[in-house]
Amino acid sequence: MSEAFDVVDIIRTKRDGGELTPLMIEWMIDAYTRGIVAEEQMSALLMAIFIRGMHRAEVGEWTAAMIASGTRLDFGDLSRDGRALATTDKHSTGGVGDKITLPLGPVVASFGVAVPQLSGRGLGHTGGTLDKLESIPGWRADLTTAEMFSQLSDVGAVVCAAGADLAPADKKLYALRDVTATVDCLPLIASSIMSKKIAEGTSSLVLDVKVGSGAFMKDAEDAAELARTMVGLGLDAGVSTVALLTDMSTPLGYAVGNAIEVEESLEVLAGGGPADVVELTIALATEMLRAAGRPDADPAAALADGSAMDAWRRMIAAQGGDNAAPLPKAGETDVVLAERDGYLVRLDALGVGVAGWRLGAGRARKEDKVQAGAGVRLHAKRGDYVRAGEPLMTLLTDTPESFARAREALDGAVEISDVQPDASPLILDRIG
Amino acid sequence: MSEAFDVVDIIRTKRDGGELTPLMIEWMIDAYTRGIVAEEQMSALLMAIFIRGMHRAEVGEWTAAMIASGTRLDFGDLSRDGRALATTDKHSTGGVGDKITLPLGPVVASFGVAVPQLSGRGLGHTGGTLDKLESIPGWRADLTTAEMFSQLSDVGAVVCAAGADLAPADKKLYALRDVTATVDCLPLIASSIMSKKIAEGTSSLVLDVKVGSGAFMKDAEDAAELARTMVGLGLDAGVSTVALLTDMSTPLGYAVGNAIEVEESLEVLAGGGPADVVELTIALATEMLRAAGRPDADPAAALADGSAMDAWRRMIAAQGGDNAAPLPKAGETDVVLAERDGYLVRLDALGVGVAGWRLGAGRARKEDKVQAGAGVRLHAKRGDYVRAGEPLMTLLTDTPESFARAREALDGAVEISDVQPDASPLILDRIG
Repeated sequence: MSEAFDVVDIIRTKRDGGELTPLMIEWMIDAYTRGIVAEEQMSALLMAIFIRGMHRAEVGEWTAAMIASGTRLDFGDLSRDGRALATTDKHSTGGVGDKITLPLGPVVASFGVAVPQLSGRGLGHTGGTLDKLESIPGWRADLTTAEMFSQLSDVGAVVCAAGADLAPADKKLYALRDVTATVDCLPLIASSIMSKKIAEGTSSLVLDVKVGSGAFMKDAEDAAELARTMVGLGLDAGVSTVALLTDMSTPLGYAVGNAIEVEESLEVLAGGGPADVVELTIALATEMLRAAGRPDADPAAALADGSAMDAWRRMIAAQGGDNAAPLPKAGETDVVLAERDGYLVRLDALGVGVAGWRLGAGRARKEDKVQAGAGVRLHAKRGDYVRAGEPLMTLLTDTPESFARAREALDGAVEISDVQPDASPLILDRIG
Repeated sequence: MSEAFDVVDIIRTKRDGGELTPLMIEWMIDAYTRGIVAEEQMSALLMAIFIRGMHRAEVGEWTAAMIASGTRLDFGDLSRDGRALATTDKHSTGGVGDKITLPLGPVVASFGVAVPQLSGRGLGHTGGTLDKLESIPGWRADLTTAEMFSQLSDVGAVVCAAGADLAPADKKLYALRDVTATVDCLPLIASSIMSKKIAEGTSSLVLDVKVGSGAFMKDAEDAAELARTMVGLGLDAGVSTVALLTDMSTPLGYAVGNAIEVEESLEVLAGGGPADVVELTIALATEMLRAAGRPDADPAAALADGSAMDAWRRMIAAQGGDNAAPLPKAGETDVVLAERDGYLVRLDALGVGVAGWRLGAGRARKEDKVQAGAGVRLHAKRGDYVRAGEPLMTLLTDTPESFARAREALDGAVEISDVQPDASPLILDRIG
């Protein structure tokens, strides 16, 4: 039987709603990574998976096959001053104004736990952690594996780009999904995230699964299903995993962009900052510290006493960043005013995210550059009382021709009402 | 809006079960033909179409777009001795032992009607008309358009390979469907067949839609649906179109192969031949002649009086074929015997077709060569009484190592019973 025959047989099985065997999945992912299965064949299979779905066991095999396509790091030998270091990581499914990784790594690292965060760049309306940190003069994302190990051991926290040898099948698949309308598919999202996170070798993992207009998952039931799948995949691979479901119907904090999100993170690390950003940082830090064997640790104290800020400065400096240099600022501003008096009952995350993206904070294609200073600075949050003519937000960019399209994205994103809205919880559920 | 964005949007529409607009289909097929839409993007769309289906209007647009991707021939000016010539063609969806095109073209042409048959080569277990005719020494399939026009005008019948400029989108799509498990999909089959047939310029068309184990369509309801769709597509394009639904649960005639099917066709043209081959030839010829404005013509008479044979000899000679040369014969034979006394109640078309394919009569890949002499010669047909030890069929090949796998294909294809089976009709329905 020729290999070509097998590929078509595998595609046909899923096309007709059948279950792929472990052998089929293992062979398919391996052959695709090695270029034996053509892009157009994998694309047909991805569409069949999108429409027909995968059973839990298939998702597990798919994830394992993607991990096996490359290297799996192992932090088992990590130590400081002769004592073994526990590792823990956080992954967010992506949201608007989600800068939590920035304060979170230093907070957790300040308790002597190692936080190896391999992150990505942004695509579309959600920002990327590396883009944000790259607005710090001198800071670099590309560390060798040896540099990453040594920084983890010395400093505790690291945020860097994932090497090409971690789950290469996922990198190839992600690029393919992007052009074939097969991105927003639960089994493919879950296996993509978890294959990278498991391959990067952390011994425990906390997932921040976003729900709402600004997130991949618009619906709480879908988000819970994604969270359950990912937690299961982590546990299967021996990684202690929990998930928080958190609200992403409105942006996190007051800053949506790159440099302005670093600025806001520094406020949090200095013991201040927006209440929602602080709440989520502490909640995720608590989970990570518990998973790393430090249920006693108090993350709020680390923010209050400056130890988290110290860990941040060491982390930034270790990666070449200048802690004293001023952050870049956008050259042009445009202020959006409230049209009437009343309570701000809606400030839609997707609208604000797309506005920031169009202003230059995000990219439409992988090869695009982002503007460090671009974004949206909010002056009011959901639930606040505003008056007609007062500023609601300031749009920031170096390319003022983008103001018009940014304002278009905000059409319908803001709603002001006479009735005060109910407070809505930030953390919706815990799964694990 | 970038073109890349549009492609993903089109794929997403069908993925989610929506209807593609005429503009989307026109743009997509044109951009794919010109290489702007990538193979992996079209493949994702094909899988979405396979699973979600297409409405009748979408299939019409898809077909029109494929026709528009190349040249559409026009036989409107065809004449002989100063009189305009009507054109008519037949297309079969493919079966085992289906050599009907060979006697049919000459029968119809003998009444002064032009029959431009652009045919293909076989792939898989069903044979190709060009493969069969190529077993005639000297005969060539590759005519220029000018040669085809002149042969139609002079001789009336022509069987040749379709030029690359007829529905090029279909050629590209067919190759893609073959490797992505998207071949057996009704809207894609219907539009593929009809785009080629309409582009080749015939003014009337008779479709032979096969039903049964040896056909694409195993089920009469699916076949009727395919026939209705194709008849509608033909009428939409101004081509007078009817379809016969015919049985393909058992092979047509006694010969399954290339040279041996030519041989059997010659028996029919000489006024003899198997009853089922004669019946179907006459039924299809009657439809074609009626569509071409000759309801009075009697095809049985043309077979009986030698005028069809004369037309055959002129057609073969016009394409370089030597009517006097002996046909190639296979070097090796293997006789399959009846295992018991009784009525042959089942002689499965698929089993016999796959056996012939494995013996060398068909090809697994487009670039494979076929053996002219290979195939299966039947000695009994369904309903015949056979005795234990009598020959049921003879396997023919130049590669005797294939006998074992050919016999494997026949496992379960033959059933002998004490009870005489009911006669089953060859022509099941007429649609149009």
